Amino acid sequence: MVSLQNEKVKLWKKLKTRKWREREQMYLIEGPHLVQEAVFSAKEHVHAILIDEAFHLPDDWPLDSIEVFQVTHKIFTELSQTETPQGIIAVCDLKSLSLTLKPGRFLLVDGVQDPGNLGTLIRTADAFGLNAIYLGDGCVDGYNAKTLRSAQGSHFHLPVIHKNLFTLADEMKQLNIPLYGSSLQGDELHQVKVSSPYYGLVVGNEGNGASPELLAQMNRQVKIPMAGRAESLNVAVASGILLYWLESARLA
Amino acid sequence: MVSLQNEKVKLWKKLKTRKWREREQMYLIEGPHLVQEAVFSAKEHVHAILIDEAFHLPDDWPLDSIEVFQVTHKIFTELSQTETPQGIIAVCDLKSLSLTLKPGRFLLVDGVQDPGNLGTLIRTADAFGLNAIYLGDGCVDGYNAKTLRSAQGSHFHLPVIHKNLFTLADEMKQLNIPLYGSSLQGDELHQVKVSSPYYGLVVGNEGNGASPELLAQMNRQVKIPMAGRAESLNVAVASGILLYWLESARLA
Repeated sequence: MVSLQNEKVKLWKKLKTRKWREREQMYLIEGPHLVQEAVFSAKEHVHAILIDEAFHLPDDWPLDSIEVFQVTHKIFTELSQTETPQGIIAVCDLKSLSLTLKPGRFLLVDGVQDPGNLGTLIRTADAFGLNAIYLGDGCVDGYNAKTLRSAQGSHFHLPVIHKNLFTLADEMKQLNIPLYGSSLQGDELHQVKVSSPYYGLVVGNEGNGASPELLAQMNRQVKIPMAGRAESLNVAVASGILLYWLESARLA
Repeated sequence: MVSLQNEKVKLWKKLKTRKWREREQMYLIEGPHLVQEAVFSAKEHVHAILIDEAFHLPDDWPLDSIEVFQVTHKIFTELSQTETPQGIIAVCDLKSLSLTLKPGRFLLVDGVQDPGNLGTLIRTADAFGLNAIYLGDGCVDGYNAKTLRSAQGSHFHLPVIHKNLFTLADEMKQLNIPLYGSSLQGDELHQVKVSSPYYGLVVGNEGNGASPELLAQMNRQVKIPMAGRAESLNVAVASGILLYWLESARLA
């Protein structure tokens, strides 16, 4: 058992804030489903596992290189970020997430504010097998507890990277990766021909979309045709449709 | 000013629960954006407007037939269902929402549990101009505060109707409306030809999808092709893609 004064416990508690996650390049995931996904899909990123004194670790998890700490119920409750803690937390590592850019398929997220929306975007990018998802400077943190929860483990399937999107757009252009931006002023999808197997898709803030300056860097601005009265779609729904459209063209 | 003992205030408070919404066939919406949308798009469904004593009603709202009640800040806070009340609530009426079924385009929602997901589904159905959205017996209430918030006013653009989906599927079959069910065991979209301008699309519960018994009533079960590792898409994202697919086929 470790005490509340323990240096490790103090550090883990700090990882609940974005500032300390960025400083330490570590983050927390919580609950048996997420931790299992991390242990089986991305074990090299798991530093340590913390369990409530009453929690029983499954015997078949490959934990050989991972430190396991049993903590008191009181400490566990202080570390937990959910209303109904499930007895297990893992400390994961962000360090190896910087990536050398190669031609591929990418989602670029500009200024999304809702952690649930961002998690759903990460899950959607994973479902379509994208090579990475990039979060621009104005985005909510990709590693906060709500985002991790709504992404349902997709963080362990593809890199989730905070990076300036203008810099990234320049790098993608140099690699001839076509850039598509979602915009209500764009061309309707059926008017646009997709010819490269690679792409970067830019989607934006819930209320205002992607920034005009960033959209100006795109090869093409595109819009989902809609016959109805809602002014716009939820950003995760719109992104799903645009990725389906890009993937259908790529695979056709 | 009306008092807490007032019969009207007592009724309005009860409308925070599903039981009383169903019994009285009324529901509450909150915040200037939603109330404005209701007043301008569906005035005939607005019974009354309640404002906090400090709230100033815009002069250009067409309120001629609508009763407006000013209440004390204390009463307003008791009626509000948000963390940061914005000073205005409307009491709306569910009564005229039963609909004679005619051939059209419909979304059928089976067992969705998350109010935010359901609101996003309603917004998406509205964006594509569907004729109605139907919620099956196991669904979360289409008129709870979170659902109304995440639907962003779409409730006033298309009927949102609770109804047994087996009964509805029978009625749709008699009208020759083809039924498509979203299912991980379905045919991939590119294998399916859509030939009718009308459809009913069934989507299901976040964890388990639509019930097998309901899916067995479909003309076709369909699946979004996905190259990646996430096991499934968020239900609202999947529904957006399926509606885009159906609409593209219809408009082609």
